[in-house]
Amino acid sequence: MKQEQIELKKNFPASQRIYKEGVDPDIHVPFRKIQLSDTIMDAEVRHNDPIVVYDTAGPYHDDHYEVDVTKGIPALRDNWIEARHDVEHYEGRRVQSIDNGFKTASHQNLVTHPFQYQPRRAKAGYQVTQMHYAKKGWITKEMKFVACRENVSPEFVRDEIAKGRAIIPNNVNHPESEPMIIGKNFQVKINANIGNSAVSSSIEAEIEKLVWATHWGADTIMDLSTGKNIHATREYLIRNSPVPVGTVPIYQALEKVNGVAEDLTWEVYRDTLIEQAEQGVDYFTIHAGVLLRYIPLTVNRLTGIVSRGGSIMAQWCLAHHEESFLYTHFDEICQILNQYDIAVSLGDGLRPGSIYDANDESQIAELKTLGELTEIAWAHDVQVMIEGPGHIPMHKIRENQELADFYCKEAPFYTLGPLTTDIAPAYDHITSAIGAAQIASHGTAMLCYVTPKEHLGLPNKEDVREGVVTYKIAAHAADLAKGLPGATERDDAISKARFEFRWIDQFNLSLDPERARSYHDETLPAESAKVAHFCSMCGPKFCSMRISHNIRDAHKDQLEGMQEKAKEFKAQGSRIYH
Amino acid sequence: MKQEQIELKKNFPASQRIYKEGVDPDIHVPFRKIQLSDTIMDAEVRHNDPIVVYDTAGPYHDDHYEVDVTKGIPALRDNWIEARHDVEHYEGRRVQSIDNGFKTASHQNLVTHPFQYQPRRAKAGYQVTQMHYAKKGWITKEMKFVACRENVSPEFVRDEIAKGRAIIPNNVNHPESEPMIIGKNFQVKINANIGNSAVSSSIEAEIEKLVWATHWGADTIMDLSTGKNIHATREYLIRNSPVPVGTVPIYQALEKVNGVAEDLTWEVYRDTLIEQAEQGVDYFTIHAGVLLRYIPLTVNRLTGIVSRGGSIMAQWCLAHHEESFLYTHFDEICQILNQYDIAVSLGDGLRPGSIYDANDESQIAELKTLGELTEIAWAHDVQVMIEGPGHIPMHKIRENQELADFYCKEAPFYTLGPLTTDIAPAYDHITSAIGAAQIASHGTAMLCYVTPKEHLGLPNKEDVREGVVTYKIAAHAADLAKGLPGATERDDAISKARFEFRWIDQFNLSLDPERARSYHDETLPAESAKVAHFCSMCGPKFCSMRISHNIRDAHKDQLEGMQEKAKEFKAQGSRIYH
Repeated sequence: MKQEQIELKKNFPASQRIYKEGVDPDIHVPFRKIQLSDTIMDAEVRHNDPIVVYDTAGPYHDDHYEVDVTKGIPALRDNWIEARHDVEHYEGRRVQSIDNGFKTASHQNLVTHPFQYQPRRAKAGYQVTQMHYAKKGWITKEMKFVACRENVSPEFVRDEIAKGRAIIPNNVNHPESEPMIIGKNFQVKINANIGNSAVSSSIEAEIEKLVWATHWGADTIMDLSTGKNIHATREYLIRNSPVPVGTVPIYQALEKVNGVAEDLTWEVYRDTLIEQAEQGVDYFTIHAGVLLRYIPLTVNRLTGIVSRGGSIMAQWCLAHHEESFLYTHFDEICQILNQYDIAVSLGDGLRPGSIYDANDESQIAELKTLGELTEIAWAHDVQVMIEGPGHIPMHKIRENQELADFYCKEAPFYTLGPLTTDIAPAYDHITSAIGAAQIASHGTAMLCYVTPKEHLGLPNKEDVREGVVTYKIAAHAADLAKGLPGATERDDAISKARFEFRWIDQFNLSLDPERARSYHDETLPAESAKVAHFCSMCGPKFCSMRISHNIRDAHKDQLEGMQEKAKEFKAQGSRIYH
Repeated sequence: MKQEQIELKKNFPASQRIYKEGVDPDIHVPFRKIQLSDTIMDAEVRHNDPIVVYDTAGPYHDDHYEVDVTKGIPALRDNWIEARHDVEHYEGRRVQSIDNGFKTASHQNLVTHPFQYQPRRAKAGYQVTQMHYAKKGWITKEMKFVACRENVSPEFVRDEIAKGRAIIPNNVNHPESEPMIIGKNFQVKINANIGNSAVSSSIEAEIEKLVWATHWGADTIMDLSTGKNIHATREYLIRNSPVPVGTVPIYQALEKVNGVAEDLTWEVYRDTLIEQAEQGVDYFTIHAGVLLRYIPLTVNRLTGIVSRGGSIMAQWCLAHHEESFLYTHFDEICQILNQYDIAVSLGDGLRPGSIYDANDESQIAELKTLGELTEIAWAHDVQVMIEGPGHIPMHKIRENQELADFYCKEAPFYTLGPLTTDIAPAYDHITSAIGAAQIASHGTAMLCYVTPKEHLGLPNKEDVREGVVTYKIAAHAADLAKGLPGATERDDAISKARFEFRWIDQFNLSLDPERARSYHDETLPAESAKVAHFCSMCGPKFCSMRISHNIRDAHKDQLEGMQEKAKEFKAQGSRIYH
């Protein structure tokens, strides 16, 4: 591990990490405070309050924190978990070479990790999920933390979790994670997929993507590694991740059977679940809804089965001509998950991979099954979310949210885009942000980002940045449309800065200050241009904002007189003739 | 003029310019035919028909055409215009140095142009607008051209134009333009703003932006130049533009009075209209709806008046304390426009410049006035479109379209975005594509692109590319949502190519083949990777599409049997127990 190869991200310009206290003194919720300059207009100086925004970057945005990726970040939730006295430390499963994709421990490419984490699980007879606590009426530290983060009451958080309408994915073995909540009545969240493939990437590159993703604002990351050293990569990621980490365990299970789907067994899969549970994965995507009878429905599709997990399970089902072990063992799976408080993300193995296949029979059939599985998971107090598509034309987007809400009883919906057209590879972050913003405005709780490399190759860190920022836009646009309290604060602040030619503030309030500034500076690099009352778009004469100010200044009395008249006119009932 | 400084764009890879014949033999409508490779699967070779797409690039995509920007492109519509015997050539206004922003003809920076175009206008007593012809029941060559382009009947085109629900902007002095139609019942169109500012750009750079914009798919361009040599720049653009050219004449008029809004007069403006009409501008944005009584309504806005034209007129109105000459002379304006068949784009001078100001009183008040002006223009058979915002959160987007349709009687709506959040300068092509796709799905006929430089600086050619491709995505997503016949053809073809690992076809069918290919090649540059059944995203083992094919191959009989059983089951009424 060569940390010097990782480009870490410090906090944004003019930004300061602050912590708000939750309802309990040991709850310190991180935010980013963006300092603004004064308004200097009309020979008057007015102060602008700083803007405080949600921050997902964990200690990486804390000036006092010294990064050491071989040690990992502090275990924020350790005491909270221990104080509940419902978990025990235990020996844990022994890590094997095959967990990293190698047959022998002496393979030259095998990477080991330096972490000495001893796993926890629920004591016999105990349940440790947030849903369990919520149903009991207990408000946990985690719930209090997210209540402060979202500016709602802890009781509201508890109630939403108890109803299954929101989840806090946080494995007791990932105490480093800062609690965050996914649900339609909270801020829309975004996930960034990272992970290596057999063709590409290193552990350093994956940690870099994690840091970049959370710097730009990813609320969770998924480690979708399918290459070598999966176990070590995941350990590095979890120990260094301030956000929940999701995985698709079938990927690693498949590696353990040399990539032959038919050779997968419940035992191998179960072993993988335990392995990842002990490492601290916060949510598992499980494609348990791919039933044997749905597979023939995909044969006449234009793009067949495009979910990796879905296609692997379909292959298994047909080879054995029986229902998948994910479905038949779903009850046991839930019994494992609730020992660690791992949320299940019910995968949409039959999601459409093209506009042509959108909302087809197999997609909806699987969704109904996900609804049945949701009830089973809830019976075990396992937190659930539902994965959604994919490729959907705009007029069919709303139906997806409505059917998911109906069949899956408002369990949080978590969609990949959807992409609203197929014709723009290299721009699929955009084709999909259009769909993502819309479906989120209808209630989707978390959006899985799509990067410009979708359909073309593995994203690099710049693609991660592009994907995350694009999805922050989609999520925030949806928050505005949903009318979340306070959602417009940052918009109003940046618009005010723009109108007052506070260029630096405009950059600093933006989702990507660095890029905003560099685009501005391409044509007007001088420092003096940062206070100029125009930019290169229109030049000084044509700046509408400058003219708007001139109007206000020059015609102040006149405008006030006209406003007065308009008021009188209205007061008189807006009649022209009396 | 140094043509060698202009990066011209040849046709896309595997693409060929073809011409379809319209209903008359002298109508040759350009399209782009994309050749596809064969499908080689299961040891079987199947032919794939080429895909034919709408092409806005004019002769630049014709292999046989030799570009000479000092000569301009061929005058396609010359004969059609002359054959109607309702126009006359005339001497035209003498071009003055001030038209280019200089006081004397000897100024060293003054650029002249080599074109010797003699203007046309309607003969006395004649009307020459497409709306006039349509109302008379005449189907013009232009209507037949667009009917072929849009795959609808010429009579349908005529009827939509007669009703004011669609327009073909094509000045009789821009015979080089290929007719295109803007209306809610046709393909959604996009406009690219180009033009210099006092701070930036050259004529070469502007021609380059024109060529790039139409190459990537812009349906119209607007020359928003506000710097020097406006007249010469515009002449070069019009003579070389295969798409309609729009302008905002008040910009040049303001230059003629040294940038002092109060000094603007009807005479200067009128002179500018004639100047631009004779050059061949196809549509004018005119901010005639900014009434004196609306201006006080903007005082409490967060971002005041952000339309340049709107702020200039507001300043004039207040300085003179009277209604603007655009409003008081609107009748005369229409009498000028219909002599040339210039469409009017009624500017939204009071459009909101921030989420905070969206759908406010001043915006809606102006929209009502635009409705009144629409009726006046229609009385003169002038073709009309209505400009719309701006910055609008998603939940207020639909209302904009509905109010525009109501007040302006379904005249084509032409919006700038709208941007769905203010917080992402440098990504405003994306914040606005989200809004643009939505409003277009509700009926907006043309979308004005927004580039990544919006709010930050003048776009360069790469920004033009990014903006145009992004807006092609938004427009096409809306076409899909509207269910336009044939809209899914390209989506289906690219998805089929993707599923069949025809990488080259996938690139070639995309909106930006060059970028799609380069993103793919970043990780897998070898030629052999172009037929590989995987990419670097998942690597070979995890390619769901490959697995999907394996499933179909290996389990063909089984799947057919299951399909048969499912059919029987359905035929028996889907009951499990009999």
